Amino acid sequence: MKVGIIGATGYGGIEVYRFLQKHKNVHSCKLLTTSQQDIPYANVYPHLHGISDENLNLVNEEKLKEELDVIFLATPSGVSTNLTPRLINGKAKIIDLSGDLRIKNQEQYESYYQKKYPPKEVIDQAVYGLSEVNREAIKDADLIANPGCYPTASLLGLYPLVNEGLIRPSSIIIDAKSGLSGAGKTPSLVSSFTESNENLRIYKVHEHQHTPEIEQLLQSVNDQVGPITFSTHLIPMTRGIMSTIYVELHEAQKTNRLKELYQSYYSQEPFIRIRKEGQFPSTKEVAGTNYCDISLKYDPRSNRLLIVSVIDNLVKGAAGQAVQNMNLMFGIEETEGLVDTPIYP
Amino acid sequence: MKVGIIGATGYGGIEVYRFLQKHKNVHSCKLLTTSQQDIPYANVYPHLHGISDENLNLVNEEKLKEELDVIFLATPSGVSTNLTPRLINGKAKIIDLSGDLRIKNQEQYESYYQKKYPPKEVIDQAVYGLSEVNREAIKDADLIANPGCYPTASLLGLYPLVNEGLIRPSSIIIDAKSGLSGAGKTPSLVSSFTESNENLRIYKVHEHQHTPEIEQLLQSVNDQVGPITFSTHLIPMTRGIMSTIYVELHEAQKTNRLKELYQSYYSQEPFIRIRKEGQFPSTKEVAGTNYCDISLKYDPRSNRLLIVSVIDNLVKGAAGQAVQNMNLMFGIEETEGLVDTPIYP
Amino acid sequence: MKVGIIGATGYGGIEVYRFLQKHKNVHSCKLLTTSQQDIPYANVYPHLHGISDENLNLVNEEKLKEELDVIFLATPSGVSTNLTPRLINGKAKIIDLSGDLRIKNQEQYESYYQKKYPPKEVIDQAVYGLSEVNREAIKDADLIANPGCYPTASLLGLYPLVNEGLIRPSSIIIDAKSGLSGAGKTPSLVSSFTESNENLRIYKVHEHQHTPEIEQLLQSVNDQVGPITFSTHLIPMTRGIMSTIYVELHEAQKTNRLKELYQSYYSQEPFIRIRKEGQFPSTKEVAGTNYCDISLKYDPRSNRLLIVSVIDNLVKGAAGQAVQNMNLMFGIEETEGLVDTPIYP
Amino acid sequence: MKVGIIGATGYGGIEVYRFLQKHKNVHSCKLLTTSQQDIPYANVYPHLHGISDENLNLVNEEKLKEELDVIFLATPSGVSTNLTPRLINGKAKIIDLSGDLRIKNQEQYESYYQKKYPPKEVIDQAVYGLSEVNREAIKDADLIANPGCYPTASLLGLYPLVNEGLIRPSSIIIDAKSGLSGAGKTPSLVSSFTESNENLRIYKVHEHQHTPEIEQLLQSVNDQVGPITFSTHLIPMTRGIMSTIYVELHEAQKTNRLKELYQSYYSQEPFIRIRKEGQFPSTKEVAGTNYCDISLKYDPRSNRLLIVSVIDNLVKGAAGQAVQNMNLMFGIEETEGLVDTPIYP
Repeated sequence: MKVGIIGATGYGGIEVYRFLQKHKNVHSCKLLTTSQQDIPYANVYPHLHGISDENLNLVNEEKLKEELDVIFLATPSGVSTNLTPRLINGKAKIIDLSGDLRIKNQEQYESYYQKKYPPKEVIDQAVYGLSEVNREAIKDADLIANPGCYPTASLLGLYPLVNEGLIRPSSIIIDAKSGLSGAGKTPSLVSSFTESNENLRIYKVHEHQHTPEIEQLLQSVNDQVGPITFSTHLIPMTRGIMSTIYVELHEAQKTNRLKELYQSYYSQEPFIRIRKEGQFPSTKEVAGTNYCDISLKYDPRSNRLLIVSVIDNLVKGAAGQAVQNMNLMFGIEETEGLVDTPIYP
Repeated sequence: MKVGIIGATGYGGIEVYRFLQKHKNVHSCKLLTTSQQDIPYANVYPHLHGISDENLNLVNEEKLKEELDVIFLATPSGVSTNLTPRLINGKAKIIDLSGDLRIKNQEQYESYYQKKYPPKEVIDQAVYGLSEVNREAIKDADLIANPGCYPTASLLGLYPLVNEGLIRPSSIIIDAKSGLSGAGKTPSLVSSFTESNENLRIYKVHEHQHTPEIEQLLQSVNDQVGPITFSTHLIPMTRGIMSTIYVELHEAQKTNRLKELYQSYYSQEPFIRIRKEGQFPSTKEVAGTNYCDISLKYDPRSNRLLIVSVIDNLVKGAAGQAVQNMNLMFGIEETEGLVDTPIYP
Repeated sequence: MKVGIIGATGYGGIEVYRFLQKHKNVHSCKLLTTSQQDIPYANVYPHLHGISDENLNLVNEEKLKEELDVIFLATPSGVSTNLTPRLINGKAKIIDLSGDLRIKNQEQYESYYQKKYPPKEVIDQAVYGLSEVNREAIKDADLIANPGCYPTASLLGLYPLVNEGLIRPSSIIIDAKSGLSGAGKTPSLVSSFTESNENLRIYKVHEHQHTPEIEQLLQSVNDQVGPITFSTHLIPMTRGIMSTIYVELHEAQKTNRLKELYQSYYSQEPFIRIRKEGQFPSTKEVAGTNYCDISLKYDPRSNRLLIVSVIDNLVKGAAGQAVQNMNLMFGIEETEGLVDTPIYP
Repeated sequence: MKVGIIGATGYGGIEVYRFLQKHKNVHSCKLLTTSQQDIPYANVYPHLHGISDENLNLVNEEKLKEELDVIFLATPSGVSTNLTPRLINGKAKIIDLSGDLRIKNQEQYESYYQKKYPPKEVIDQAVYGLSEVNREAIKDADLIANPGCYPTASLLGLYPLVNEGLIRPSSIIIDAKSGLSGAGKTPSLVSSFTESNENLRIYKVHEHQHTPEIEQLLQSVNDQVGPITFSTHLIPMTRGIMSTIYVELHEAQKTNRLKELYQSYYSQEPFIRIRKEGQFPSTKEVAGTNYCDISLKYDPRSNRLLIVSVIDNLVKGAAGQAVQNMNLMFGIEETEGLVDTPIYP
């Protein structure tokens, strides 16, 4: 397979590259940017010294769409809206890691993203790439809107309950926490070490653009669900997301019965690990890997269920799930290139 | 004033010491431990080299209770249960920073703490030292049960709403996050750098011992409130607590009206800062100080109000509030020894 | 006294402001910038909510130099070269925290700084503000070139030995380590959390602009000394500098004799603490304060002496020493506004 | 191959396990401890949930030495001294990751380690496992004393220069910096998050037990070399070592000639990367991998050469090099199980 990564200099791009390095079916990997050209990739990422001898190239949409089998767009918000219309309908399948193509409702998109909406035919074609939930649609897709990091953790934590109709539809509260790499590579005051180290911050309160993304998927399963309350915090660490989710149940449940429900949904999933009762995952336990670890505990006092779901935001929350989707789209073993033991500590 | 600190080697103790150093009314400060004796304090805390020439002394209850004006107990869970009965009813007033004396209901205490309950006459005498809420009772008290770190942040964030009866009584969810210094000074695997750096952990799910402490105060204001859902996370930073609080309102409210309510409650409070609409406090903005910074935002979509409350867990959540209470008990200016500009960055 | 801070929005500026808040002789403090105006200072630094009600103002050199008693320049490299000529020779004394005015040799300055050299009359007037070494000259100065962070730690660690002529002149190696706040407030990739957390970096190898500053002072004491080897590392922490210094001695010495020498030099110094034999300072033990803590140990095997010197780069390495110099220039108690117990942990 | 890891619960042990998971020739891996037994490994390391189904077992020396092909000892200081005599002379080859068997001189060992010296026949048999330098001896060895973390980084940075006799023999100064995982898994105050975060510490000044280990290897190459000056610092990060090395040259050299010398030594080495002139490695660029990245720069002013050498202390400084040595001992491709792209950021 011939693969291209547009936005190879960003953190999403370098992670896609890392997984493709280990992928048996990938024989060439073009590294593309919209600004730099003809610079060795190892100049941008010195940790690749002696590993990568590729150069960065400028994007040429017409050539790429015919030469390549699959193109990953790991580009900042808004870029994909412009590029995708020129990349689809060629030979190459497209996997977009940005938020541009995820929201089916134009008004919602414009309200949360404050950006121009992509052409309707692109949105119509885009399949939401939550691998475990949309597997069959992904297999047939030519264009994937790869899920956001917070939605991935949150939706995998909520899906069985919502699908079973066990929760009060308006009771969902997601208190999400992310490491700083989620802010991307462009330097800013908020993401500087000095401002974020030894600090804890809440941001975009009631305004985060991942809110409609989460509701859209949940409502596709059960249209009564929502509105959710979703809040996001910056944790002084590089990688990792934890979604602490609170829901009210229609009726009292035993934690171990709920755990069995989750196991029945996910027991065949190679990347979802339901943790033992009483054992809650920490973010470091999935760092660098495509795992999503989930644990839950019912509180009979308040009739609330707490669900904890952790991922590596750059892997299952971005590049790893993108490669998982590529595997699905091309009929490759779903775990190819993605199996790894977490590095601990 | 002559002051004693029992448990001076712990993090609560060293912070009480720091504030007393700046306190105009404190003329001597005895540093006491239950295990070491006659070691210079600056050996335990080398940052005091040239600042402190005091030695640590072994606790002698009989002498202390008559010689001193006030004794701070900054001791591990369970110590105060044994020591306080032998310290009260002398000349010295007592301020206990541990959780031993906070819970009025024996069954609750034993269930959450798994420890022996203190004698009834001690519990009866102990006034819960949430300075802003219990100010008048504190002024008359001889024995203070100084609030826990999580309860301080959470209760100050909830008090006006609960007191006004604006929220649905069973709707309170507190998602709390703390730095590692909250775990105390005794080394453990979980609090080692290697295990907690670049990591995010949830712990004691539905079991944290601060749950009944929060409910007890809230129910003293409004006996319909509760049960709450309260969860706690370890953040890879040394100091700071953020309580992200979710409540449902009886009816829709404008954020600025709610903010005005909080301002009317707290405008005379020297240590509570209600932040501007749209500006949310981060933990570093109060680090090292006795401030509690609060912000809130109503979400009309879900009819939920989000309240953010941040403190330094070792200051307003422990030593700072303890000194604030001492000032109240002795008729000293409430801010004495405690006024300071946060160090930033 | 009326004081002005030009560059109040930077980290040097906010630290000068913090110390002036506590300073008995300072009755007004103008906050000045070269770009913003009429914005509340607390908007830039929300931790000042309720503490500062000052607005930022645009610099007006002609007015400032006559209205104010002293002006701190906490501006980026190059700004002072332009501003100082227009500020001197008025009523106000000037303390420049940048590196612009420190180097007496034009060629050296241009080679290391790659910037335009300031006018000769400004350089001639500027007194190097290493308080403990140049105290008498500082008292008479109208213009201070406040020392750099690395030079302060390194020079205070070396001064007694060099002044006594005990070391081989060409043997000085300074391996220096700094927290990220030394990189300033302007966002950059290198100083972003994601790139610097869980990372250790060496930079500007053999090229750091503090090299000639260190040599200039040492050679003013003993013109045989140098060239030094000086290297700098970025440590994943916000504040703190450690200079680990290696020198060869002319003859074998006992560590405790050398320690006595340092004590004889520094025993009257309020901000220098010579640590006990065998106890080495860590950076956190001086964080937020104007202390410089020093320890040393002779190695008979190699005839080398190791000296450790730690400071807070933003305090003794910048704003704290600047205020100390202001005190000296105005005949105020040298420690005014600067005495504080370090916050630990 | 059948492999055993004694001390599997420690950080060295879990890293050996991680690499063996990826190793094609390893078909079974016994996880052994001296204290626990019959507990699932995934209970100790929850990140292995769903990956490892092995149980921990108690060490039985007699059985192990005959059943296994190779045994890794990843045990605390002193354990190997007792265990190794009972493990050698069976079928199993032994690779000891501790410092017990590295020092050939009993007096030196006892002086630096303050522990009982191992039996002479064990010491005589032990080959020092610095893979790149001792490759041929390692191939024939039955017992490996695997190098320490600091010595590995330092020796690989110094070896070409010392072997060529280019440096003044007594001029070597190594200023080494390590992340906290080097302190091991046993909790201690110094390695707690609260004490080491936002802090920088020097420790064991002139007394570190890796000093004789470094000198022993250097003197085996050139018996004139030494004594060295070696100092060690704790950096607030989990993984990574940087050795900043200062040497004086017999005569002036161009940096690019010295770089060519290093390349000629190491061009065939799969795990040593000589970085481009002017590009210095940071620790994160090798994290999780077996790489040692080296850069150097000559300073004509002082005639000193600065060498920077970085490794992951738990990989090339421990478990990775141990597996590399296993590969050499068994005639397996040297890189088997060890090739990986660093995870960045």
